[in-house]
Amino acid sequence: MVRKPPELSANREISISEFFEKNRHILGFDSASKALFMIVKEAIDNSLDACEEHGILPEIEVGIERVQRDEFRITITDNGPGIDRIEVPNVFGKLLYGSRFHGMRQTRGQQGIGITAAVLYGQITTGQRSQVITKRTEDDVAYMFELGIDIKENRGQVFLEKPMIWDRDHGTSVSITARGKYQTGRQSIIEYLKETAAVNPNMDLTFTDPEEKRFVLKRVIEVPSRRSTAVKPYPLGLELGEIQQIVIATSAKNMSDFLSQEFSRISRKTAGEILVIAGIDEKRDPHSLAPEDIRLMMEAFRKVQIMAPPSDSLCPLGQEFIRKGLLNVYGELHPSFYSKPVMRPPAVHNGNPFSVECGIVYGGDLPADSQITIIRYANKVPLLFQPGACAITKAVSETDWRSYGLEQRSGSGIPFGPMMILVHVLGTRLPYTSESKEAIASVPEIVDEIKSALRIAGRSLKTYMNKKEKRAKVMEKFRIVRELVPAIATKTSLLLGEEKPDITGVIAKIANVILVTEKFATDGDGLTVTCQIYNYTTDVASITIIPDPPAGEISGQQRSWDISGIEPAGEAEFTFHLDNFQGKYDGTVYYFTGQDVTKVQGADPLPGDWDIRGPEMMEEESDAGN
Amino acid sequence: MVRKPPELSANREISISEFFEKNRHILGFDSASKALFMIVKEAIDNSLDACEEHGILPEIEVGIERVQRDEFRITITDNGPGIDRIEVPNVFGKLLYGSRFHGMRQTRGQQGIGITAAVLYGQITTGQRSQVITKRTEDDVAYMFELGIDIKENRGQVFLEKPMIWDRDHGTSVSITARGKYQTGRQSIIEYLKETAAVNPNMDLTFTDPEEKRFVLKRVIEVPSRRSTAVKPYPLGLELGEIQQIVIATSAKNMSDFLSQEFSRISRKTAGEILVIAGIDEKRDPHSLAPEDIRLMMEAFRKVQIMAPPSDSLCPLGQEFIRKGLLNVYGELHPSFYSKPVMRPPAVHNGNPFSVECGIVYGGDLPADSQITIIRYANKVPLLFQPGACAITKAVSETDWRSYGLEQRSGSGIPFGPMMILVHVLGTRLPYTSESKEAIASVPEIVDEIKSALRIAGRSLKTYMNKKEKRAKVMEKFRIVRELVPAIATKTSLLLGEEKPDITGVIAKIANVILVTEKFATDGDGLTVTCQIYNYTTDVASITIIPDPPAGEISGQQRSWDISGIEPAGEAEFTFHLDNFQGKYDGTVYYFTGQDVTKVQGADPLPGDWDIRGPEMMEEESDAGN
Repeated sequence: MVRKPPELSANREISISEFFEKNRHILGFDSASKALFMIVKEAIDNSLDACEEHGILPEIEVGIERVQRDEFRITITDNGPGIDRIEVPNVFGKLLYGSRFHGMRQTRGQQGIGITAAVLYGQITTGQRSQVITKRTEDDVAYMFELGIDIKENRGQVFLEKPMIWDRDHGTSVSITARGKYQTGRQSIIEYLKETAAVNPNMDLTFTDPEEKRFVLKRVIEVPSRRSTAVKPYPLGLELGEIQQIVIATSAKNMSDFLSQEFSRISRKTAGEILVIAGIDEKRDPHSLAPEDIRLMMEAFRKVQIMAPPSDSLCPLGQEFIRKGLLNVYGELHPSFYSKPVMRPPAVHNGNPFSVECGIVYGGDLPADSQITIIRYANKVPLLFQPGACAITKAVSETDWRSYGLEQRSGSGIPFGPMMILVHVLGTRLPYTSESKEAIASVPEIVDEIKSALRIAGRSLKTYMNKKEKRAKVMEKFRIVRELVPAIATKTSLLLGEEKPDITGVIAKIANVILVTEKFATDGDGLTVTCQIYNYTTDVASITIIPDPPAGEISGQQRSWDISGIEPAGEAEFTFHLDNFQGKYDGTVYYFTGQDVTKVQGADPLPGDWDIRGPEMMEEESDAGN
Repeated sequence: MVRKPPELSANREISISEFFEKNRHILGFDSASKALFMIVKEAIDNSLDACEEHGILPEIEVGIERVQRDEFRITITDNGPGIDRIEVPNVFGKLLYGSRFHGMRQTRGQQGIGITAAVLYGQITTGQRSQVITKRTEDDVAYMFELGIDIKENRGQVFLEKPMIWDRDHGTSVSITARGKYQTGRQSIIEYLKETAAVNPNMDLTFTDPEEKRFVLKRVIEVPSRRSTAVKPYPLGLELGEIQQIVIATSAKNMSDFLSQEFSRISRKTAGEILVIAGIDEKRDPHSLAPEDIRLMMEAFRKVQIMAPPSDSLCPLGQEFIRKGLLNVYGELHPSFYSKPVMRPPAVHNGNPFSVECGIVYGGDLPADSQITIIRYANKVPLLFQPGACAITKAVSETDWRSYGLEQRSGSGIPFGPMMILVHVLGTRLPYTSESKEAIASVPEIVDEIKSALRIAGRSLKTYMNKKEKRAKVMEKFRIVRELVPAIATKTSLLLGEEKPDITGVIAKIANVILVTEKFATDGDGLTVTCQIYNYTTDVASITIIPDPPAGEISGQQRSWDISGIEPAGEAEFTFHLDNFQGKYDGTVYYFTGQDVTKVQGADPLPGDWDIRGPEMMEEESDAGN
C-alpha cells in the first residue's frame, strides 16, 4: 500500500510570472553580463516594431548608467507611436500579453514576453520599480509611471501614475534598474547595436555607455521600413488540431465560406474543388466537422493546386540592405568578393510563411586559418548567442563547402577559410529554441531552405574563384607581354639595325586588358590622387570607376567617374582630392562597373553589382523538381 | 502625427496553452521523429519521480503502436502511487500545474508542463483525445478518463470519466495518439530507454516497438531510490527580489524567526549575527523591510559563517551506479581505463544547491580518430538533444585536454581520442535552456563546477597514462630480458664450453613482473580455458583474477580466482569452462586486484577499483583556496 509522504506539497497552479521568475535563463537572463544586453535588445525590438508598424523613421536613444558596482539603470527612449495609458501596466507588467501574437505578421516581438521579462528581471535582482514615460500624438500630455510586477498574479502593479509635459509629440521611454555586468567584445551591447544598425539603415541610434561615452549611428536611408502585412494561415503544413482551433473560432456558417475566408490562397473555386475531393457538402456547418472529416480535407489540400504563400507577408532586408550592411561593417577588411545577396522564395512551416536571405564575403583581410564567421539574423534581429543550438549553424555545418573551395574536415562542420556568411531567416512565426529567441529551432523545412540559399551563394563563390583564377592568368600574360614584347622589339631592331617599331597596338592585341593605376601627391591639407586608366585592348573602352580611399574624404560631391571613349592603346585619367588625409597612404581601392570583370586589372568589380542574373527570388537550380 | 494602422490587432492576453500550441518546438516537439521520443520521456520522468517519492521499485511498460502511416498510439503504464481522480484533468490538461514547482527538491519534472505538453501535441496533430487510467491503493476502483485541452482557457476537458476494475493495486497508464515518425539510431527512444536504465538500475522496463518487438530491461538493484529531501532556499546567491518574494509569503512576525525559518543553514544564532551586522532590529516585522534593508542583510550573509548547502537535498547517482552504468553500456568496447567516478561537493546557483558527478572511460575499442563522446545527464535524465547548447558541452570544450593526453586543436573545442565522458548535473532546480529540458543553461557557477569535476577525472586519466607508459616500459624490458638473457647464457656457455646455467632467478630479478597468459581447447559444448600466472618477481606473489570472456558463460558460480603463494620463478594456473561458446575465440580479458598495477602483464586492473583515495566528495586540489 502506498501513502503520500507527508512532506510532499500538493498540486498547485503556477503563474507564468512565477515560472519565469524561477526560469529566467530561458528568457536569456542567464548571466550578469547578458542581462543588460537582453534588456536593451527587448526594448529596441519593441521600438523598431512599433516604428515599422506606424511608418516612422526610428530614432532611438540608449543609455546605461552605473548605479552601484553591479547595478545599472538602462533607459531606452524612442520616437514610436506611444502607448495608451490604460495599456501600460499590461504591456510592461503582464507576461504573455501583446498585440502581435494572434496575428500572422513578420515582427521582431511576438510573444508578449520580452519587455515584461526585462522589468521582471530588474525587480528580481534589485527590488526596484521600473519607470515608463509615454506619449501619443492624440494625447495632450505624456504619462509617467512607476511600476512593478505582482508575480503571484502575473499582472502589472502601478505605484505611481502622473501626467507630465514631455518635449516630444510621440514616443516611449522605459527605464529599468537591474543587476548586471557591463562588458565589451563579441557578444556585447555595442556589437548588438552595430549589427542592428547594419540591418536597420533607416534608424538613428545614440548610445551612451556607463563611462558616458557617446556612440552615434546615423541613418543612411531616409525611407521608413515597409510594414509586413498580416496573412491568414496557409493551408498546407497545418496540423489537424490547428484546423480544429480555426473551426472553433470561425464565424463562417458553411464550408465554402469557411475555406475561402479562413485560409490564405484558397479561392471560392479552389474551396469547391477541395470539398468535392474530400466528399464534404459545401453547405455543411464547419462546426460539425469531425477529426476524420478534417483529415479528408487535409488530404484534399494536397491534391488541388494551391498557390505559393503570399510574399507580401514577409519583409526581407533586401539585396540593397544586405550589400550596404556588409559593406558598412566589413568594408574595412577589404574582402575580395561579395556575393550577390540570395533571396529564396517563400516556403512554409506549419502554415507559417518564411524565407531565407543570405550573403557571403570572402578574402581580403579576413583570417584564412580560422573557422568562417556566421552572422545570424532572425526577423531583422541579430542573434549573438547560442550559435550551437541554431538552425543556421546546423545548415552551414551540414553543407559540403569543399566543392566551393573551403577547407572542411570530411565535408561537414563549420568550414575554415577567409569567409563570413550573413544569413537572415524571416517569417510570420519563427520557431525559436526558447523564449529568449537566441537561436532558431532546427525545424527540417527551415534547415533545408537555409541550405538551398547557402548552396546558391556557394556556387557564386565558386564562379568568382574560377574568374579569379582566369584573372590571375590574364595578369601574368599581361606582365609577360609588357616586358617581353618591348624587349624583343628592342633586340630585334638592334639586330636588324632598324628603328624600334611602335608596338603599342601589338601589346594591346596580345594583352587585352584595361589597366587601372594611380599616382598621388601630398599637399597642405590632404592628398591629391590621380587615377590612370590604360586601354590595352583593341576596342574603344568605357568604364565607370568608384574610388574607395583608405582614409580622408573625397572633396566635393562626385563619388564615381564615367570614363568613355578611350581609344585602343590610349589612356585617360581623373583626379580627386582627399581632404584631411593624414599618415601613410596605402593606396585607394578602385571599384568599377560597365566592363567585363576579366578584362580589368587594378580595380575590383563593384561589390554585389556583377553576376546579376534573373529575378530577385532565386530558385535553386537543383530544386527545380520540387 | 501618428495613427494606428487599421489592420493591427489590439493588445490581448495570451493563454499559456495558446503560447505553447504555437511554440511547441520549445517543448521539444520540433520534428515528427522527436515527438514520439518526447512523449515517452515526459511520461517516464513522471513515473520515476512518483515511484521515487513513494519508495516504490519502478515497473514501467512502454508501448508504441502504429495507427496510421504517420500516426502512433503511445502508452506508458507504471506502478506508481496513482493520482487522485479530481486531479487528473489538471495534471494532464493544464499547463503550469504541478506539485514539484514550489518545493525545492531534486526531481526530474518540476514545471508542470511535460505530460500536458505531450497531451497537447497529440491533440494538435491528430485531434484525438488522450486516455488515462489511474488507481490509488486507497481507492476501491480505478478510473478511466478520455480528455483533451481547452487551449484558449488552458484547462483539461474531460469527455468521459468512468470507474473500472484494473488488475493492479496502484498505478497510472496514459495513452496518447500523436503524429510522429518512429526511428532507431542515436537519438531514438530505444537509446533513451537504455541510457535511462543505466542510471535507474532499480527499474524494470518493458518496451514494445511498432513492429511488436519486445525489449526487456531488468533491474539489477533491488533497492528503491532514495527520495531527495526538500530544502529551504540557501541564503547565498539569492537575488534581492527573490528575498522580497520570501518576505511577502512568510508568516514570521519578527526578523529572527524569519531568517531561521525561511532559509536553510541559518540558525537562530547566525540570524542574530546577521541582524547585528545589517543593523536590523531582531523584533522588526519582516514585511516592513525596504529594498535597502534587504541589501544590507544580503551583505551580512556574506560576512557571517554559513555552512555549505545540505547535501541530502541532492540525490547523486553515486559511484556504484556510475561504474555499473558505464560497465553495462560500454563494457563491450573493453575500455582500458575507467576513472573512479568523481562527485563534487554541493555548490549553489541562485540559492539552489546543485552538484556534479562524472566518470571517464578510455581506450579499448573506442574510436581513436573521432571526437570524444559526451554522455549528458541532468537529474538522472539522459540528455540526447541540443549538445551544442549545453553547459556540459561548453565545460568540456573549455577544458584543455592536451595535458591529459588528448588531441585538441589549440586547447579548446571537443577533443579527439578514444574516450567517453559521462557527466551528471543534479540539483533542486536546474536551469534548462528551454522547457523541453534538453540542455543545461550555461550559468557560470554550473559551468565552473563541471570543469572542476572534469579536471579531477582528467588528472586520474593522466595518472593512468603515466602508469600505462611505465607498464609499456616494463613489458619491453621483460621481453628483452626473456629473449636476451637466455641467448647470452647459451652463447656464454658455448664459448666457455660449460653447461648452460639455470637463469630463472636472474630473469625474475631483472624482469620483476607477474605474467598472465592463457591456453584453450574446444570441446563438445564449449571451450576449456586455462589461465596461467608466472611470477617473474623476487617475492612470493598473490593475485586475484577475474576473467571476462568474449562470449559464452563460465560454468558454475565462481567468477574470480584468488591465487596466492606463487614462489619467485614459480607459476600457477586455474581452469574454467565456457558453456555454449561458438565461433572464433578472441581470448578472454583478465582483470586483477591485489597487485601493483605496474607489475602485472597480460591482465587489466579491475575497472574503478584502483586509485581509490580519500573521501567520497572530491574537492579539487587547486580549488582548496576557495
